[in-house]
Amino acid sequence: MTSAPHRIRLDLAYDGTDFSGWAAQPGLRTVQGELEAAMAVVLRVPVSDVKLTVGGRTDAGVHARGQVAHLDVADEQLARWNGRGPSQSDGAAAWAGLRARRVNGVLKRSAPDIVVHGARDVPRAFDARFSAARRRYEYRLRDATTPRDPMTARFTAEVPRTLDLAAMQRASDNLLGLQDFTSFCKAREGATAVRELLRFDWRTTEDGAFAACIEADAFCHSMVRALIGATVAVGSGRFDGEELVRLRDARQRTSRFAVMPAHGLSLEEISYPPDEELDARAAVTRARRDALPSTVDPE
Amino acid sequence: MTSAPHRIRLDLAYDGTDFSGWAAQPGLRTVQGELEAAMAVVLRVPVSDVKLTVGGRTDAGVHARGQVAHLDVADEQLARWNGRGPSQSDGAAAWAGLRARRVNGVLKRSAPDIVVHGARDVPRAFDARFSAARRRYEYRLRDATTPRDPMTARFTAEVPRTLDLAAMQRASDNLLGLQDFTSFCKAREGATAVRELLRFDWRTTEDGAFAACIEADAFCHSMVRALIGATVAVGSGRFDGEELVRLRDARQRTSRFAVMPAHGLSLEEISYPPDEELDARAAVTRARRDALPSTVDPE
Repeated sequence: MTSAPHRIRLDLAYDGTDFSGWAAQPGLRTVQGELEAAMAVVLRVPVSDVKLTVGGRTDAGVHARGQVAHLDVADEQLARWNGRGPSQSDGAAAWAGLRARRVNGVLKRSAPDIVVHGARDVPRAFDARFSAARRRYEYRLRDATTPRDPMTARFTAEVPRTLDLAAMQRASDNLLGLQDFTSFCKAREGATAVRELLRFDWRTTEDGAFAACIEADAFCHSMVRALIGATVAVGSGRFDGEELVRLRDARQRTSRFAVMPAHGLSLEEISYPPDEELDARAAVTRARRDALPSTVDPE
Repeated sequence: MTSAPHRIRLDLAYDGTDFSGWAAQPGLRTVQGELEAAMAVVLRVPVSDVKLTVGGRTDAGVHARGQVAHLDVADEQLARWNGRGPSQSDGAAAWAGLRARRVNGVLKRSAPDIVVHGARDVPRAFDARFSAARRRYEYRLRDATTPRDPMTARFTAEVPRTLDLAAMQRASDNLLGLQDFTSFCKAREGATAVRELLRFDWRTTEDGAFAACIEADAFCHSMVRALIGATVAVGSGRFDGEELVRLRDARQRTSRFAVMPAHGLSLEEISYPPDEELDARAAVTRARRDALPSTVDPE
């Protein structure tokens, strides 16, 4: 690229069923791989020139309704992407929508299980990964009392036991706050598992499934699915909420609960600070991570 | 079959995406074909001995959450299906659930997109097709203002226009009642298209789509999808509700509105009278149909 003065934020969604996760891997179908290929078509550049940075690296089979990524594009590339564009009087939203439609036109043929919702200009200080302030996930499951619905089975895990939703909510409440979540994380040498769990609410969905809304400043690897597994263990009576807090405070992985299957999980939203606070936010995140021996990836 | 004293009602659901509809057809993957094959396994009979009668024949791509079928099984077949069964003290629901689990165990390998929810004993007077008093469908669609959700796209049609939901509800209200729906039906020689439309309500779903709940005593072929297409034409401003009533009263097919795609449609529920009224109900339905030159299939 000769010049890259434009940073573009992509908002997107995907059905994770047929992807080997977000991150590009040789020979595997990944969201990043398909999306970078589609971007190369609309920008008319070699695919090796397209580099996406993502807000939430999702594992194989995990879905997303609110994924965010960014990329840098040069003047002449943006001109090709915009084409003639909407009329001059239209605002930024019209441009964001028009660009998204052009990417979707390519994805429709190559990867219809990805949809771009918007592609808008952001300040250079915006970083899809380092600017993120909070991530929100949803986990959907049904217990043995709820008939299986083949239409929603692609994104709903099945638990072959009867679950006590009220007990699960109480257990979830007890896990909130700034804590060391090592017991729920895949070990990564030298990485901290201190996270702030901001929200962990259960509800019943339209089709009779249970859904957890779970939000934190960041998650370590497999943390959401381990937290759900632990709460499900409480809901089925395997152990109680106090035991769960003890397991957390022990700060080591345990086989007392399962990491739940990927297909019940969806990344719903990533929250970013307002533009004028972006520089400060990225500096804070980077400083925290640079102080550690290795980089901590958000899930 | 040597003796067939047991009539069994199957309640089931399926994701219609990968089926060529309900009705068995040589060389095609159909719900009836897959389910009859699975029943042959649990009953340990040749598949030609299994004959299902269905409450709502769904077209290719149409889903079902509340499909009903019946079949007759002989004493010795039922004994094999039941196996040792639940304990003697358990009620009919335990037997219905146990049998369903055995069929699902087979379907899990052959057709995981079908799920049987129950398999219970019903009186010989019960007929999944002729006893049905009402059918309820749901049609899901999103308009141009709602971002596409790849997770629900398998069962949500897309309308590339902005729709006025209030106008659609008013138009739907005007279609209720006992009417001749010939304008919304695929012509079938000698068949009546007089139906009683009992309910036609629109709502916004959790994921921001629009869903219509539509119920009638019965539907003729393609009627639900044509009614939705006509209402969508009103919602997009192509014509108004009064024009829609005129189109209905003209009692002939028109190109003024489209038959909507199959994948937005799901059969949600079939209602049957209580057991003691079954004989009377079937007699009424048969008499009405025998009076016509050809049989009218429910959709």
